[in-house]
Amino acid sequence: MADILPKPLQRLILVLAKLPGVGSRTAMRYALHLVREGSDRLEELSAALDETRREVSLCPSCFGMSEGGGLCPICASPERRGETLCVVEGIGDMPPIESAAQYAGRYFVLHKLLSPLKGVGPQELHLDRLLDTVRDHGIAEVVLATPLTTDGEATATYLSRLLTQEGVRVTRLAAGVPVGGAIEYLDRLTLSRAFQDRKEL
Amino acid sequence: MADILPKPLQRLILVLAKLPGVGSRTAMRYALHLVREGSDRLEELSAALDETRREVSLCPSCFGMSEGGGLCPICASPERRGETLCVVEGIGDMPPIESAAQYAGRYFVLHKLLSPLKGVGPQELHLDRLLDTVRDHGIAEVVLATPLTTDGEATATYLSRLLTQEGVRVTRLAAGVPVGGAIEYLDRLTLSRAFQDRKEL
Repeated sequence: MADILPKPLQRLILVLAKLPGVGSRTAMRYALHLVREGSDRLEELSAALDETRREVSLCPSCFGMSEGGGLCPICASPERRGETLCVVEGIGDMPPIESAAQYAGRYFVLHKLLSPLKGVGPQELHLDRLLDTVRDHGIAEVVLATPLTTDGEATATYLSRLLTQEGVRVTRLAAGVPVGGAIEYLDRLTLSRAFQDRKEL
Repeated sequence: MADILPKPLQRLILVLAKLPGVGSRTAMRYALHLVREGSDRLEELSAALDETRREVSLCPSCFGMSEGGGLCPICASPERRGETLCVVEGIGDMPPIESAAQYAGRYFVLHKLLSPLKGVGPQELHLDRLLDTVRDHGIAEVVLATPLTTDGEATATYLSRLLTQEGVRVTRLAAGVPVGGAIEYLDRLTLSRAFQDRKEL
């Protein structure tokens, strides 16, 4: 049915369908919306993409994202506590942690998790840079905020061992029942952790 | 929380959030995905947008979309029946109609519906071009496929009167229970139409 559309639009739909969670119907909706909105809207998005491509790069300190090759806003901020480091899997983990407003330290982005199944070993996680950061900045506590998945847990266990040798305090995000979550629909692994880690009131 | 992101990325998120049904969280997800995928993916989407902007324009015959300023694939096709014309509100209505595979004629895209509330009158619907098409191409039947909304119905009523004067057969898409739809959850207007238009078996 898409063959009634002009070829450039068909190509645009294929490219948009590569976005996460976007199927061909949603991609068509986006593409038709952009075309209906007109030339300005198409150019606006194209320009924003080009600017991002040209100017956004990895922060040389935390491997988060920065502008123009310098430090990212967090690493550059004098207001962030420099002696705690939060280790996350990806840049997408930082905004929700920031919005939780409980953490005021710096970050370190792994970009990958250890995964024996996918053949990702410790040498692919630029852990030498993590150790450099811990040593150079006199880090006192590392909070491991990798996901509660098999790979995330394996990574946390490995990093915990590695960092404890450095004499750093290593902590892990608490596991348990999500706030607002019904017990009725909770999976057994989460409930099992919530029972194990139950606390005195 | 987005202020920890580089400015170009913040701008990209704002632009992506203008897509239909895309909030700031989804826009951030799309933007972070594109950045993670790297420079090639950003450029691919940007190039597809630029190509669409340069090469896609309105078909001079049906006001659908065409490439390079010529007729659209449907108007240019010798296999489409030239004596029936399907009037739709927007270009987004054509792909689902095509995929229903019941219609083999041509289209006419209004781009707007009559709307007394929004102040859209007949003069804004390029109806002179619709009448020209009907006369010049010897159209025998016009299928009104505007939506079953107040504005869509008002437009269909107006066009029906206008086109009947031209001696053309004017039809309207059937209203009723959607296929696969439960009666239990159906709104009363649809059910009312389904009863009114019930047919002998």
